Amino acid sequence: MSLNDWLTAAAQQRERHGLVRSLKPRDIDSDLLDLAGNDYLGLVRDARVTAAASSAAVAWGAGAGASRLVTGTLAVHSELEAALSALTGQPAALVHSTGYHANLSAVTALADADTLLISDAHIHASLVDACRLSRGTVQVVAHNDIDAVEQALSQRTQSRAMVLVESIYSVLGDRAPLPELAALCERFDAILLVDEAHGIGVAGGGRGLVHELDLAERDDIVVTMTLSKALGSQGGAVLGSPAVIDHLVNRARPFIYDTGLAPAATAAATEAIRIVQTEPARVERVNTVAAELAEAAGVEPVAGAVLSVPMAGPHEALAAQAEAARLGVRVGCFRPPSVPDGISRLRITATAGLDDEQLATACKVIQSVTQ
Amino acid sequence: MSLNDWLTAAAQQRERHGLVRSLKPRDIDSDLLDLAGNDYLGLVRDARVTAAASSAAVAWGAGAGASRLVTGTLAVHSELEAALSALTGQPAALVHSTGYHANLSAVTALADADTLLISDAHIHASLVDACRLSRGTVQVVAHNDIDAVEQALSQRTQSRAMVLVESIYSVLGDRAPLPELAALCERFDAILLVDEAHGIGVAGGGRGLVHELDLAERDDIVVTMTLSKALGSQGGAVLGSPAVIDHLVNRARPFIYDTGLAPAATAAATEAIRIVQTEPARVERVNTVAAELAEAAGVEPVAGAVLSVPMAGPHEALAAQAEAARLGVRVGCFRPPSVPDGISRLRITATAGLDDEQLATACKVIQSVTQ
Repeated sequence: MSLNDWLTAAAQQRERHGLVRSLKPRDIDSDLLDLAGNDYLGLVRDARVTAAASSAAVAWGAGAGASRLVTGTLAVHSELEAALSALTGQPAALVHSTGYHANLSAVTALADADTLLISDAHIHASLVDACRLSRGTVQVVAHNDIDAVEQALSQRTQSRAMVLVESIYSVLGDRAPLPELAALCERFDAILLVDEAHGIGVAGGGRGLVHELDLAERDDIVVTMTLSKALGSQGGAVLGSPAVIDHLVNRARPFIYDTGLAPAATAAATEAIRIVQTEPARVERVNTVAAELAEAAGVEPVAGAVLSVPMAGPHEALAAQAEAARLGVRVGCFRPPSVPDGISRLRITATAGLDDEQLATACKVIQSVTQ
Repeated sequence: MSLNDWLTAAAQQRERHGLVRSLKPRDIDSDLLDLAGNDYLGLVRDARVTAAASSAAVAWGAGAGASRLVTGTLAVHSELEAALSALTGQPAALVHSTGYHANLSAVTALADADTLLISDAHIHASLVDACRLSRGTVQVVAHNDIDAVEQALSQRTQSRAMVLVESIYSVLGDRAPLPELAALCERFDAILLVDEAHGIGVAGGGRGLVHELDLAERDDIVVTMTLSKALGSQGGAVLGSPAVIDHLVNRARPFIYDTGLAPAATAAATEAIRIVQTEPARVERVNTVAAELAEAAGVEPVAGAVLSVPMAGPHEALAAQAEAARLGVRVGCFRPPSVPDGISRLRITATAGLDDEQLATACKVIQSVTQ
C-alpha cells in the first residue's frame, strides 16, 4: 500500500471517530487563565528564571554542541545535577534533554532480558515506550493494585524485577501507594522506579513524594522527573545512587546518543530549584489552588496539582472545554488514545501563578462547566 | 539479584574491557580547538543566534509549559517550522524537542505491524531504537548495500516497507546512495526515511542532500533532522508531506507526550537557518575545512563535516586523542559500543568557526597523531 493511501485511510478513521487533533499556536499574551499547562509554580515566565535562561544562552551558547560524553557536558549541567540532588535528597542525578529520554534511559539501562517489568496500567506513555524498548518481559497490573504487584513479584521466573509507577499520576492525579510498594520491592529484591514528573515542586514541600516518605536514599529506588513542569523549563533527570548514575552514563543509549540539554534550559531549571527551596509559600499556594479547584469541580481532593474530571464522552469533553474558554479559562481535554482507561476527561491543573481574584473566577467557571 | 550487585558486576566488566566512560565538564573558555563537537557552522556561540535564544526566553518563558497539543505550541514553533520547510524545500515540518524524538516519532507513527523496516547497519542509535519500538519487522542490511535493500524489498511478505538511512553517516562520514534508494523505494512502494542530522547546514549548499538531489517534494520520502548540530541549538524535526505531518501530530507518541521545545532553542534554530540562507560562504567554509582536515588525516575526502579515522584499538584511539589534546586540539574518540562495526576511531569534525591559522594548526596536529 502506498504511504499516501495508508495516511488517507488513517485520517478518515480519525475523522469518523471524532478524534482529529491539530496544533493551535498560543498567543504570547492571552486573556485566558491557563489551567491546561503544567506550569504548577508559575515559574515559566518568572523574571528570575527567564533571566537565568537568557544569561546562560549568551555565556555558553544556544546549544551544548555535542553529546554529554563527547564535549557536551558543561559546568551548568554539573550545577543543575548538584541542585537536583540537594532538592530531592538523592545521592546523584543525571540531566537528560527531555523527561521522555530520562524514562527511556532509566528503564532500558537498568533492565535486562532477565528482568520482569511490572508496570502500573496508568504510567506515562514514555514509561510504556521504555518498557517496550527494553529487553525485559512486561507485565501490566491494574492501577494502584498492591496485591497484583505482590503476586507478579512472587511468581516471577526472572531473577530481576522492576516496578514502574508515578508518584502522582498525570491523568487521574492520584498518588501511588509508595510505602507499600517500597516494602514489597525490598522484600522481593526488585527495583522501584518512581516517575516524579508531577510530584517535584508540588508534593513534599516541593521535594517530591519520595523524599517526603523518607525513601530518597534507598539504593533500590530510582526516581525520574521532568524539568518542564513545576520547574518551568525543559529536560528531565534520573536520580539515584552514584552506581545507578554511573551505569546510565555508560549504558543508556537515549543519554549517550543525544546532544546535551541546551544551556538556557539547564540554567533556568537550576534557578527554579533555588526558588522552590527559598519560597515555600509558592509550593503551599499550588496546593491551596488545587484544593479549591477540586471543590469547584466536585471531585475528591487531589494529591498534587492535577485534577481529573470524567466526562460523558469525547464530544461532551470538547464542548465543556470550549465553554470554559468562552468564559475565560483554558482547561485541558484528554480523549482516547491519551487516556489509559478510554474515559474522556477535562484535565485541570492548578498553578501558584493565580491570584485570589483569578482563582475565584476560575472556580466559578470550572463549577459551571463540570457540574 | 540485587540492583547493587548487578551494577557492580557491570562496572567490573566495563573496567576489564577498558570501556569506562565518565563525564568531564568542559570549560566556558578553552584554549583547545574543538574538532569534537557538532557545531559545523560555528553557530552555537554566534552572537545573533544566542541573542535570539535570549530574547525568546524573556518574551515567551523558559519552557513551552505544556505538550504541543495542549497549550505548548507557540508562534516561535510555527515560525521555525516554516523556516525549516523553506530551507529544506519540504512541504511541511514538525519540530520535536530532540532529534532522537524526531526519529522515534517518524518511525513508530509511520510503520505498523504489516511493515518491513529495512535498516542500514550504520544508522544512528535513535533509529535503531525507533525500529525496536515500532511494531514492524526489522531487517538490518549491510552498509550502503543497494542490492541487499532491493532483495529485502522484493522478497518481503509485508504489504508495507520503510528503508532507513542517513544522508551522511555519523560515524563513517560517508553518504547514502540516495538516488538509487529513492528509485528502489518508488518501484517497490516503500517509504524512504532519510536522517539528515549531518547533512543539513553542510551538504547541498546547507539545504541538505535530499534537496540537492531534487527529492525534497517526493511524498514517499520522509526526512528527519536535528537542530543541535549545524544549527547550533537543541531539538529535532520531521519533514515531509502535510499528510505525514498531520499523521504524526495525531499518532506519534514521542511527539504527543512530550513538552514542546523551549522557546530559546526554537528561536535560536530559526535565526541559524536565516544565517545559513544568507551566508553561503559559511557553508562553503565548513566543506573546505573538512577537505583540508581529511587530507591531513590521510583519509578519503568526506561527504560532509565528519571525518572518521580508524585506529588499531580502543587504547590507541584514547592515546591519540590525549596526544591531540596535549597539542591543543580536541577530537572525538568512538569506541565500542558507540561504533556499529566494533572499530575504534578518532572522529574529527570540521567547523566553519576555524580561521586559517587555526586550521593550519589543526591540520598539523591531526597529521601528527594519525599518520
